[in-house]
Amino acid sequence: MFKVKVYVTLRESVLDPQGTAVKNSLSKMGYEGVEDVRIGKYMELMIEDKGQDLESAVKDMCGRLLSNPVIEDYRYEIEECVVS
Amino acid sequence: MFKVKVYVTLRESVLDPQGTAVKNSLSKMGYEGVEDVRIGKYMELMIEDKGQDLESAVKDMCGRLLSNPVIEDYRYEIEECVVS
Repeated sequence: MFKVKVYVTLRESVLDPQGTAVKNSLSKMGYEGVEDVRIGKYMELMIEDKGQDLESAVKDMCGRLLSNPVIEDYRYEIEECVVS
Repeated sequence: MFKVKVYVTLRESVLDPQGTAVKNSLSKMGYEGVEDVRIGKYMELMIEDKGQDLESAVKDMCGRLLSNPVIEDYRYEIEECVVS
């Protein structure tokens, strides 16, 4: 069994209104020095080892479903899990 | 300047219908072995060093605004950034 962690973030050039709203809220709540907030997605996939090419499958999933390549970047980590 | 990475995930006991929908989509798209998908949030905060107690400020932000402690867990990483 593999645990795949996928991080999807908006590209630098894309505005993040949700992040701006959070930044403004934090300032209003009294937290000092918050200059920028960007909000993305974090996904954990548990994938059973069926002899597939996991790395290329994960890349494919990210490009086709998990992220929108026009406005988002992704990165991923693959960890092997020992299921007891 | 510090970069704070915050990961917010649903607690184990909380159902994740969005994750289930993604899992079913991946199966329909032909990816084998996807057993479970959980979807959370990933946030990057840029915080200027104003001599505040950053660690306790970040914990406080996570508990009050960035996550819902009733149904979500959070973890965070603080990195020092050199701004050139």
